Amino acid sequence: MTTFDQVSDTASEQSTSGAATKWPRYLDATLGFDNHWHPAAFGHELGEGEFLSVTLLGDKVLLTRANGVVKAIADSCAHRGVPFSKDPLCFKAGTVSCWYHGWTYDLEDGQLVDVLTSPGSPVIGQISIKVYPVQEAKGLIFVFVGTEEAHALSEDLPPGFLDEDTHSLGIRRTVQSNWRLGVENGFDTTHIFLHRNSALIESNRLALPYGFVPADRDAMQVFDDGWPKGVLDRLADNYMPVFEAKFDGETVFAANLTGEEKKVAAQISVWVPGVLKVDPFPDPTLIQYEFYVPITETQHEYFQVLQRKISSPGDAEAFAVEFEETWVPDALHAFNDDDVWAREAQQNFYGERDGWNNEQLFPPDLCIVKWRMVASDRARGVRSARGAKA
Amino acid sequence: MTTFDQVSDTASEQSTSGAATKWPRYLDATLGFDNHWHPAAFGHELGEGEFLSVTLLGDKVLLTRANGVVKAIADSCAHRGVPFSKDPLCFKAGTVSCWYHGWTYDLEDGQLVDVLTSPGSPVIGQISIKVYPVQEAKGLIFVFVGTEEAHALSEDLPPGFLDEDTHSLGIRRTVQSNWRLGVENGFDTTHIFLHRNSALIESNRLALPYGFVPADRDAMQVFDDGWPKGVLDRLADNYMPVFEAKFDGETVFAANLTGEEKKVAAQISVWVPGVLKVDPFPDPTLIQYEFYVPITETQHEYFQVLQRKISSPGDAEAFAVEFEETWVPDALHAFNDDDVWAREAQQNFYGERDGWNNEQLFPPDLCIVKWRMVASDRARGVRSARGAKA
Amino acid sequence: MTTFDQVSDTASEQSTSGAATKWPRYLDATLGFDNHWHPAAFGHELGEGEFLSVTLLGDKVLLTRANGVVKAIADSCAHRGVPFSKDPLCFKAGTVSCWYHGWTYDLEDGQLVDVLTSPGSPVIGQISIKVYPVQEAKGLIFVFVGTEEAHALSEDLPPGFLDEDTHSLGIRRTVQSNWRLGVENGFDTTHIFLHRNSALIESNRLALPYGFVPADRDAMQVFDDGWPKGVLDRLADNYMPVFEAKFDGETVFAANLTGEEKKVAAQISVWVPGVLKVDPFPDPTLIQYEFYVPITETQHEYFQVLQRKISSPGDAEAFAVEFEETWVPDALHAFNDDDVWAREAQQNFYGERDGWNNEQLFPPDLCIVKWRMVASDRARGVRSARGAKA
Repeated sequence: MTTFDQVSDTASEQSTSGAATKWPRYLDATLGFDNHWHPAAFGHELGEGEFLSVTLLGDKVLLTRANGVVKAIADSCAHRGVPFSKDPLCFKAGTVSCWYHGWTYDLEDGQLVDVLTSPGSPVIGQISIKVYPVQEAKGLIFVFVGTEEAHALSEDLPPGFLDEDTHSLGIRRTVQSNWRLGVENGFDTTHIFLHRNSALIESNRLALPYGFVPADRDAMQVFDDGWPKGVLDRLADNYMPVFEAKFDGETVFAANLTGEEKKVAAQISVWVPGVLKVDPFPDPTLIQYEFYVPITETQHEYFQVLQRKISSPGDAEAFAVEFEETWVPDALHAFNDDDVWAREAQQNFYGERDGWNNEQLFPPDLCIVKWRMVASDRARGVRSARGAKA
Repeated sequence: MTTFDQVSDTASEQSTSGAATKWPRYLDATLGFDNHWHPAAFGHELGEGEFLSVTLLGDKVLLTRANGVVKAIADSCAHRGVPFSKDPLCFKAGTVSCWYHGWTYDLEDGQLVDVLTSPGSPVIGQISIKVYPVQEAKGLIFVFVGTEEAHALSEDLPPGFLDEDTHSLGIRRTVQSNWRLGVENGFDTTHIFLHRNSALIESNRLALPYGFVPADRDAMQVFDDGWPKGVLDRLADNYMPVFEAKFDGETVFAANLTGEEKKVAAQISVWVPGVLKVDPFPDPTLIQYEFYVPITETQHEYFQVLQRKISSPGDAEAFAVEFEETWVPDALHAFNDDDVWAREAQQNFYGERDGWNNEQLFPPDLCIVKWRMVASDRARGVRSARGAKA
Repeated sequence: MTTFDQVSDTASEQSTSGAATKWPRYLDATLGFDNHWHPAAFGHELGEGEFLSVTLLGDKVLLTRANGVVKAIADSCAHRGVPFSKDPLCFKAGTVSCWYHGWTYDLEDGQLVDVLTSPGSPVIGQISIKVYPVQEAKGLIFVFVGTEEAHALSEDLPPGFLDEDTHSLGIRRTVQSNWRLGVENGFDTTHIFLHRNSALIESNRLALPYGFVPADRDAMQVFDDGWPKGVLDRLADNYMPVFEAKFDGETVFAANLTGEEKKVAAQISVWVPGVLKVDPFPDPTLIQYEFYVPITETQHEYFQVLQRKISSPGDAEAFAVEFEETWVPDALHAFNDDDVWAREAQQNFYGERDGWNNEQLFPPDLCIVKWRMVASDRARGVRSARGAKA
């Protein structure tokens, strides 16, 4: 665990001078971190024999389910580079055939096992394309993207995500910003100012401040030994919440609190390769996880997952109804839609105007600084727009 | 005043060989001239407490009106670069707060004066962003863009624009071409061929030729001492108008003149940083001013302003009615819409095919040549796509 | 004629290693081959006095018909580079006048012969723009694009195309891929897998296999002496057709043949600068020609022409009815639409991912390899994105 002495919280030292030396691999990771597990889709999106094309860290990947098991293969025929997904063909379970010349690959190892237009062709057995390790867990399909042997899935997930007595439900959508702006917005403690008028606060009677005064900095912990690696901010202990804004001694706005409000977001943490955990949220009975999966340099796939402890199938069914009726519209949309446009509003600065070297951070951004450092130092590999590297 | 000997009017010498040495700073000014006043909007577009975001010479600028006075500030928070204009907040007149983390700036000097999410933050008073000098005159909001101290507004406006006994009304719109194609099209004497079938000519009984034979070249004057700097072409004296086109001795078209037509455009002039004056136009009782304000390298904001001498409030009211009913639809649209598409039709050549070095000018383009030279030599600063320079 | 020994058909040697040395000028010809005839439009698209703007090998060309004869001139005025086609003017047959300043060119030699806005201007007779040789044949308007003197049209057309006792009818459309992907898809023998379920096969009772086993390689001929230059593949002799697909000994699909099917595509050939001939197709009474004319690096104009031998005007009329009612919807669209999306599906690989050096060819691609070699070695000139060269 890194101590806080390493990062000062004075305004001058939060400045970005030397960003390139403080978190060099993070700056380079425009397309994310290689050799990690990333979610690709929800399991319910892919029925037996169906195909789904996704883009992970710039790689186009074709998913299919054969005999119940999800397989992932590069979505590009070795012959002339066309995407299988334009008209994916399966003449035998466990294979995919290209619509163009019938080149047929084994989904297990990516070997070219037949060419339907040219029986007995000498290329059979001589050519293969990339296949990706896949694991399905808690309703999500995870793909290991990179060149190393797949590590344990649990190494790339927040603690608790795989807990057996939990049920998880989620949605996903594409956001027009680099993935790092997703992670940072989610983990940023003071961005909640953005949500100060959210209907969710009143409808679910939440005690959500609009700002903070720093209190106990030891409440932040960096996990950089073992796996998963990440940063945890005990929000409830780390800061004094602010519910009233004054300007020149005059109150300009204030939350309307009764004292009966539910407390949420006691702990917030972020984990390599880019997963957020807010515990609890948007209700004391729920934990929210968010994954920000790189697609291109200017797009990421935003996975929003809610988890609840359950003790019976009935609990799961009740949660499913509540999820669709309440949490999807009120929290994952109405509330988090503000996060989506906030990320997109930063893209021009970070994409076109070198925001990484021109931003001016302030003390509450310490959590972001710590995330950048642990990710830069400890992620297994970096995928930049120029290709992958260690 | 430059004499005409400096620029020959033979075909060969109008050629563009050496454009880079004849008007080097003009060629470089893809985003216009720095350290000058440019119009940003009309005053009536910005009510008390309202916000408006505009782009001037590539700068995104936020305008607001506080206590009746227009202020202009960089539309980008110092913290993480988001545009205030996405959801501009004002909790106290004379300030703007960022929707993201509540960073709050004084509009007078751009100083960070409060951070609503982090009361007493050490960054307060340590950070500032750019503010721009603003003046409101004749219904327009002018912004001084650049790094120098603001000069007098009158230095960057055509003579007569600020005259007290006048009333000015106008419209604006975005045109898809570089700003220089706007200036040059407006000042180009023979481009009126384009307007030869305009409905305005008949409806307002104008004597508008479709071409010219050069006559008295001394009718063109270059103003390159003092301010404003520009070029004036006494069109009525400088050329013999052509109202009939012959081809191999045969008339192919001719204006249908009665001798009762109104004479317009006796003088046409253009002024640094890029303002046109056509006197009179589109009627003997009116003067038309046009501003071509750089937005990006391939876009400019086109301001069209009509000015009339008035002697009473009743005159102004009558002019306002006439402006909306006649001059907006018949002149500023029907007639000038042709100028808009003519500029846009040149953008590919000047933008993609290095038209500045491949164009072939002819004698009537002398006015354009003189404009380029005075602008290149005398503009205070140059804003190129690579940044600003003197 | 090249012998087949020059190109091995083992999988390893079909690999693309050294593509840059095997067909260097072909790789460079992103915008096609210079100094050749290319079709620009169909003759019926251009009535007397009408104008049509097309793009050939990146050149914008204005076509017009004057006194029955089609003329072609650069669609860009020498003065300020605007396209005439924005509002093409003709005040005298055999000339075009620019809408902007009335510069008027002779369509025969491109000379500036008048300036309507400036009678007697010294530039008259001193400036000219490019005109292109034009020939109209078999319903098509051909333009010679390049810098050399025009060669005989027949040098750039497949044998038989100009035969006197034939009638030709066609359509054209723009396809979103480089032109070479058009040629190669058309000439590729095994791409017919793509068409295996086409409604045309059943409606016109065609015997179209979905694949081939190589048989007599001597059935392929390279014509690289004289003109036209190209490659001919006697498909009927060169391969054993495959009508049944097996996988691990199990039939996964098979054509439903009665033995009464019509035989088509006995010979397929491709000719410099990029013309396909399929003989016969889509019916034993028809020959299909396809031209893939470069527009930009990522677009080509796709001309589809059907030719039938006729012996009377009545034959031509009957063909015209049949063409519209049957061949346009069933063959040139339903069937060939699959070819269009197959080309477009390759563009990302060949355009963005250097497919020319990353593709993995297999023995049936020998025909494509031979085409690339003859085109690379023998085309008169190369038009790359960086300009033309020999």
